[in-house]
Amino acid sequence: MRIIGIDPGTGILGFGVVDFEGGTAKMVDAGAIKTPAHTPLDERLEEIFDGLTDIIKDTKPSVMSIEKLFFARNVTTAMSVSHARGVAMLTGRKAKLEITEYTPMQIKQTLTGYGKADKKQVQEMVRMHLGLRDVPKPDDCADALAAAITHYLMQRVK
Amino acid sequence: MRIIGIDPGTGILGFGVVDFEGGTAKMVDAGAIKTPAHTPLDERLEEIFDGLTDIIKDTKPSVMSIEKLFFARNVTTAMSVSHARGVAMLTGRKAKLEITEYTPMQIKQTLTGYGKADKKQVQEMVRMHLGLRDVPKPDDCADALAAAITHYLMQRVK
Repeated sequence: MRIIGIDPGTGILGFGVVDFEGGTAKMVDAGAIKTPAHTPLDERLEEIFDGLTDIIKDTKPSVMSIEKLFFARNVTTAMSVSHARGVAMLTGRKAKLEITEYTPMQIKQTLTGYGKADKKQVQEMVRMHLGLRDVPKPDDCADALAAAITHYLMQRVK
Repeated sequence: MRIIGIDPGTGILGFGVVDFEGGTAKMVDAGAIKTPAHTPLDERLEEIFDGLTDIIKDTKPSVMSIEKLFFARNVTTAMSVSHARGVAMLTGRKAKLEITEYTPMQIKQTLTGYGKADKKQVQEMVRMHLGLRDVPKPDDCADALAAAITHYLMQRVK
């Protein structure tokens, strides 16, 4: 099973594609789509749509696992992330992927056993699952990989 | 100038297409895209993208004027609206429309001269501008038409 994980954002959208075969996880591709801050929002959303469409075409995942905001301290940030998140979900849908959503708490719980684990602990588990020497950078990329791994682990339990 | 106004939402997205020629405004089309509540979000977003793409193809506006949330009492609602809003803006961008954004306060100010005017007052101005017997229903449709008229009036001032 090949899964693309997504950590949505308008300024920076993290993605991570992981192959899960025979009990091992292998990172296929990972990175971030960055859009310049002073560009009109519709242009930024198109860059996300086109960029993500290309990544999906190149890597051919069957599932998109996307982080779900369930609360936000800052409404402005929540609205900004949600614009990008809507476009990312549409991109996955248009590419005929199965779309799954996990809250940050579900991701933490699944990777570390503790729903309030800190960011570093989650990143360390991402590094271990993928057999990497270093934690992938930037954080958005590690978070996207965490979403992909979460979906695989959740699937196994069912 | 033909303008499509958009009042974004995931459950119901209002649209209104208006022609402005020689000082008169004429409603070309107006309505709402409704998506069922218990459908997965990615399906609903695709329905919005496809529905709006068809409306733009049929009516051929050159500008999209979309209501902009600038604050929200309810974060959950703000996030839901923003998913649909991101997709609507992407749709306009993909159809090569010019995209403009107005806050509810700007729309009220432009149509009634008072930024805190109530909904009914704005709807009454929409009815008058378009020379209609009745206020278009549902409210989302009237709000979308108000966004379209706002852009036309703002353009004239420049």
